[in-house]
Amino acid sequence: MSNIREVAKVAGVSIATVSRALSHPDKVSKNSLKKVNDAIALVGYKPNMLARNFRFHKSYAILVLVPELANPFFSTVVKGIEDVARQKGFNVLLGDSRDSIDREKEYLKLIETRQADGVIQLRPHRPADGQIFSHADFPVVSACGCVGTPYPSVRIDNAAAQQQVVEHLISLGHTRIGVITGLADNPHSIVRLKGYKQALENAGIPFDDTLVTEGDFSLWSGLNSATQFIHMDQKPTAIVAFNDEMAIGAIKGFKSVGLDVPNDISVTGFDDIEFSKYNEPTLTTISQPATELGKTAMNLLHRLLEGKTLAQQEYILPFEFIVRGSTANKA
Amino acid sequence: MSNIREVAKVAGVSIATVSRALSHPDKVSKNSLKKVNDAIALVGYKPNMLARNFRFHKSYAILVLVPELANPFFSTVVKGIEDVARQKGFNVLLGDSRDSIDREKEYLKLIETRQADGVIQLRPHRPADGQIFSHADFPVVSACGCVGTPYPSVRIDNAAAQQQVVEHLISLGHTRIGVITGLADNPHSIVRLKGYKQALENAGIPFDDTLVTEGDFSLWSGLNSATQFIHMDQKPTAIVAFNDEMAIGAIKGFKSVGLDVPNDISVTGFDDIEFSKYNEPTLTTISQPATELGKTAMNLLHRLLEGKTLAQQEYILPFEFIVRGSTANKA
Repeated sequence: MSNIREVAKVAGVSIATVSRALSHPDKVSKNSLKKVNDAIALVGYKPNMLARNFRFHKSYAILVLVPELANPFFSTVVKGIEDVARQKGFNVLLGDSRDSIDREKEYLKLIETRQADGVIQLRPHRPADGQIFSHADFPVVSACGCVGTPYPSVRIDNAAAQQQVVEHLISLGHTRIGVITGLADNPHSIVRLKGYKQALENAGIPFDDTLVTEGDFSLWSGLNSATQFIHMDQKPTAIVAFNDEMAIGAIKGFKSVGLDVPNDISVTGFDDIEFSKYNEPTLTTISQPATELGKTAMNLLHRLLEGKTLAQQEYILPFEFIVRGSTANKA
Repeated sequence: MSNIREVAKVAGVSIATVSRALSHPDKVSKNSLKKVNDAIALVGYKPNMLARNFRFHKSYAILVLVPELANPFFSTVVKGIEDVARQKGFNVLLGDSRDSIDREKEYLKLIETRQADGVIQLRPHRPADGQIFSHADFPVVSACGCVGTPYPSVRIDNAAAQQQVVEHLISLGHTRIGVITGLADNPHSIVRLKGYKQALENAGIPFDDTLVTEGDFSLWSGLNSATQFIHMDQKPTAIVAFNDEMAIGAIKGFKSVGLDVPNDISVTGFDDIEFSKYNEPTLTTISQPATELGKTAMNLLHRLLEGKTLAQQEYILPFEFIVRGSTANKA
């Protein structure tokens, strides 16, 4: 069984350098790191990382709390996180929280018990979270959340994005614009609804709360909301859905009763998942920089894990409004 | 700072029982476990799991190798794995392998270094894998792979499933049936192609390799294959895609040149992801029991982690063939 002494000998460096290369690879010169890694491969040394982790009280793993793993938007954010985590020598533990704070608390035991060093939270902060994250004694970063996150965060300006979508619909002559939110208490629902209202207000269109339906970000809930709109006496001529899945579901619902999208009714999404380009019609939507959100979040978390401070509490990345085939002039 | 002695006192059990409840919760009576957990909550004890893990040489984490995290089929399998892992007291480390064996080897260092105790591999076994998994000195299970996996596996009968799809198309009068495979060396491509050929052979239809196009399981690659079919002199009247994304991409391609699916050309998928119900037309496809595949894989891995043996090396779960709107009689 080879050991660290042998590695040091073959690498031509001190045992301390080998130890440092294993524990803090970023603190060793590239040249030394290469020597050590080559020597490790050559002598077939397998460091027991659990021993290292125990000694340094670090696990070199981070925990990502994902509200819905099957949502392609989140899996793209996770990819960005993973890319940077691997560069920095960290493993990614994924916690499928299913938007439940109780499940999140279970996962946070990984931190308490030192099996993870920090957290990236992918769902937006809620008042009910209290100080779980804002006064945590571990590094935590919010990715793709909302305004008012009381801990370091990276996100887009959700209200401005939704406002731009609605302004586009108003420019096409629509004044009766239905909404499919996420769950009513989801901050994304609240913030994007603000953007919707702002666009109406700017155009002098009164807000009508009967036009707001509640979804849950799933395909099915979009279909369900479409059914509600179809049965209204004064039907909307355009619909803004607060994510792409619900927009795709709603389009399905409208087409199933013979309505043409966009000629009878326009529909917009949010996120720009890959499927939005393949839907018929293709989806007018907001493109979130999903990979970049993930990468930035991991870079911020890494700074915190190194005991450094962040220049800002909030990093706002640019979104892009993409007009495709699901929106048209009011008939 | 509370300690294990205090927990034992409050719980009214021995220190050994508390220790066992923390290290092997499945080996403590439910009654004792509840007492210990209540006492832990009451006295606010936070066990250092790293110390426990170091002592027991176990990490209580498992590694899942996912070839494509953004594919909703895989994220559903992961959900099933996670459900069972949590019940068994294991955390799930997710490795986004991007179908690269080099990336997988990086992740497998988690095992060598005892940061994970076992592996679930979601991509099918390849001959080039050699003995990495089949002669591993750690427990490993294959989920949603192919026939001939040289280590414990749970899967559907891919060849039989694909054969049934093609038999359906033949029953609708199609004889010129195009194929969109995954990458040519992917075992799913090879095995499903066998099922395709078997159905042709049973019906006395000669195999024509010009009808086989290579995709990579992405939406885009399905669209790309459609373009190839459109430019063939003798066009196929039906297409079998080896997953739903490629089927959805192909349908997009056919519609973009004015073809009607299914009246001009039938298209089938594989997996039954949620989007396949929302596509226009809805997708005729094979429903894989994704959640069950994940749950079964984790149950098998858990048996192996406990040092038990498995009754079988291969567990075959039933698939379902679902006829929807994307297939019709040959025009």
